[in-house]
Order: sequence, then structure tokens, then C-alpha cells
Amino acid sequence: MQRIEMNFFDFLESRIRAIDSLLCVGLDPHPSDLPELTGSAALEFCRGLIDATVNFAAAYKPNAAFFEALGPEGIAALRDVIAAIPDEVPVILDAKRGDIASTADAYARAAFGVLAADALTINPYLGHDAVEPFISDPEKGAFLLCKTSNPGASDLQDLEVHSTRYRAQGALYEHVARLAQTWNTRGNLGLVVGATQAEALARVRAAAPDLWILAPGVGAQGGDLRAALQAGLRADGLGML
Amino acid sequence: MQRIEMNFFDFLESRIRAIDSLLCVGLDPHPSDLPELTGSAALEFCRGLIDATVNFAAAYKPNAAFFEALGPEGIAALRDVIAAIPDEVPVILDAKRGDIASTADAYARAAFGVLAADALTINPYLGHDAVEPFISDPEKGAFLLCKTSNPGASDLQDLEVHSTRYRAQGALYEHVARLAQTWNTRGNLGLVVGATQAEALARVRAAAPDLWILAPGVGAQGGDLRAALQAGLRADGLGML
Repeated sequence: MQRIEMNFFDFLESRIRAIDSLLCVGLDPHPSDLPELTGSAALEFCRGLIDATVNFAAAYKPNAAFFEALGPEGIAALRDVIAAIPDEVPVILDAKRGDIASTADAYARAAFGVLAADALTINPYLGHDAVEPFISDPEKGAFLLCKTSNPGASDLQDLEVHSTRYRAQGALYEHVARLAQTWNTRGNLGLVVGATQAEALARVRAAAPDLWILAPGVGAQGGDLRAALQAGLRADGLGML
Repeated sequence: MQRIEMNFFDFLESRIRAIDSLLCVGLDPHPSDLPELTGSAALEFCRGLIDATVNFAAAYKPNAAFFEALGPEGIAALRDVIAAIPDEVPVILDAKRGDIASTADAYARAAFGVLAADALTINPYLGHDAVEPFISDPEKGAFLLCKTSNPGASDLQDLEVHSTRYRAQGALYEHVARLAQTWNTRGNLGLVVGATQAEALARVRAAAPDLWILAPGVGAQGGDLRAALQAGLRADGLGML
């Protein structure tokens, strides 16, 4: 598929329309899923998942941690997994990176250059200039962590924030959603919101009407797909996977 | 040096006392520092830094991003850099990881097992259960991002938070410092606070009287060493590097 000068989310939307699916397939080679803890075992495991799902996968989401835990050969396997995914299917590397300036540039080169992912999950704690290096190329996308579904999510994300300077009011995660809406100047920034929380999804959608939401946890983590879609979809019936 | 059953910060303190230095030496193989973009060039660059500083380095802090940007051979070089550091000098891997459950476990295995780092920088946005896998082994340490020195730090970290449920009041970064103080049940959790901000250092020290603070930015980023030390040191004259 030709992707010259195609915005990441246009690429994702074209895939979604082509197969009429919002499914993002995680590629998480847990140690318990592998016959041996090697890069080639992780690659074979992921290839099996890709073969089984390629006709209804809107995107693939390999989890960097399970490859990193296998050392240098794990990183080679991650690169090979991404290369094994058909060109027309976007790859979102789940790595939750977050750092500043030249370090963020290096993480972006690792994800988009070396590994050839199309998008990356990133962390908002360091603010705008730590996000910018990941969205400087409109062909590459980033999904900013907003509201996660783990117990500790409430430790920071649910805190009520008040700031006249930043005009912030509401929960921290809603503030992150509003910031992302303003940071999205090239149309290639989305959010990560756990699918198990329909109310949070609705609040994020209200705070960021235009942004794509990556909503992990439908199915495996007990999320209710219908409630999540009702809460998170945009008016155009897209905007969530 | 024998490290059997030695807490990470006891290990760090023994090194600091042995050489009477609080200096943490960053190992950041920027592309502009390398004659060619290869793992072996990064390894040689870092070996040169280590040779030049080993007599006054309280710890080394390799930056994962610059190695990741070199692909699988970069990860092999990172492993070799850490192996080249004398056993008596703690290694803090600067990777700012943050994820939940089995994914955090995998990042911990990558940092502490595969790469054999002694400590890791981590991100607080996902809360307590995302921190716990990094501090389950007292011999390994973690430094939680608290207040950074980049412009975007104010986007989240400086927000005023209010929560009766969490008894939170003050800036978000102060809340993170208080949380870390309570999460530090095994004595192996510290904080990252930019050295350029003496007032923030003093507030963090007030919120977390016992915790070690990793304060990058003295020197290279324009921090004032004396002001930073006055603000950040513990009553025992330690607690900051």
C-alpha cells in the first residue's frame, strides 16, 4: 500500500474501512506462551497470531517489554515481527515511552526508524515538549496514556486538579485529554483509555471530541465492548479501536 | 564486592562513602558523539567515559534510548557497557519505564536480569501497582520521576491537586513524593528531581524526608550544585546524587 505523505490516522482509517473492523490485536509473547525463552520462539508465536487474525485486524500492537526481556535477540525478533505484518496493517508499538529532548528523539528513532512501527504509546507525565518529538512526523502516530484500568490508576489519574493558569478543572486524566486535543496540531496524536471504564471513556470523549482512542482491555481484561463503544466512539462512528 | 542480600541504597551508600563523591555519571552515546552509528562505537565511547571517571563516580547512569536507537546491537552494547562497569559501582539504567502487571515484570527482567542494572528510573503515572514490580527485590532500586526540569514539566507536575480521599494537597509532584515515601516499604525507592530547581528540591525533601533523590542536570543543564545540595540533601548529608 502506498503511504507516501499519508497521515497516520488516515492510514488507520483506510484499514478500518477496508475490513470493517475496529479490532487492535495485541502481540504479547508472555514467557508462559513460549516453548523456550528465545527471540525466535517469540517471533514464531507472534507470526501464528498474525496469521490467525490478519483478516480482521485493524492494527497490531506488539508489547515492547516482552521482547526486551529476551535481550538483543528479542529486539531483533520485535523488528522481524513488525516486518512480518502486512504493509496495509498499522503497527502500534506499545512501549509507553516518555522522556525529553534528544532522549525522546532517540526513542522515536528506535520505534519509527529501527523497528519501523507506525505509532507508539507514550506517557504524559513530562508534558508537551516530551510529546512533541513523537508526533513531529505526521506519518507516524502516538497514543498518549490518559486513563488506565489498573488499580493504581487512581493514585494520580483520578486526582482533582485545579489551575487557573492552565484553566484546568476536573480529574487529571481529563486534563491530559484536553492537553492532547490542543497538542494534536498535525492530526496524529491519540489517547489510551482502558475499555473497562465506560464513564471515563465518555468523559475523555467529551474533553477530546476529535481524538482517536486506543482502548485496550475489551475481552481479555473484562471490558464490556458495547458499553465501551457507546462511550468512546466519535460522532462519525470511528475514533476508537 | 559482595552484594549478597544488600539493599540497593546500602550498596550506593557504601560506594559514596568509599570515594566521598555524590557524582552520578551519565552514559549517553548521542549520535553526534559517535564516529559511526554502531553498537561497538557506543560501547567504545562509554568505555572511554568510564575509564576517565571511575575514581570519582558514585554511580553510572546509562540512557537506554541512545542504545535502543542502534537496534539489537545497541542493546548488546548496553549490556556490555554495564558489564564493563566495575562491580562496586552501582548502575542506574535511565529508561523511565512505566507499565502494569506482567508488562512491568517483563521490563524489570529486562533491566535487572538481561542487562544486569542495579536500579532503574520509572514513571509514576500508572500508580502503585505499576511501581511495585520494580521494587519487589530490595537488592534492586528504582527512582520514580517526580519533578523534571524541562518546560513541559509544568503541564502536569505543577498542577495543584486536591483530594480528600488521598489526602492530597499541593502540586502533583509533591503528591508523587508523598506517595513514594509510603510506597518505599523495602527501602529501595528513590525519586528523580531536576537539579535546576532548588525550590522544588526543597519541597520534595520536605514531602519525602527519607528518600534518595537522583538530581540530573547539575553542570550540563545549568543547575547550581551548591543550591541544589542545600535543598536536597538529607539531614545525614546523604540522600542525593
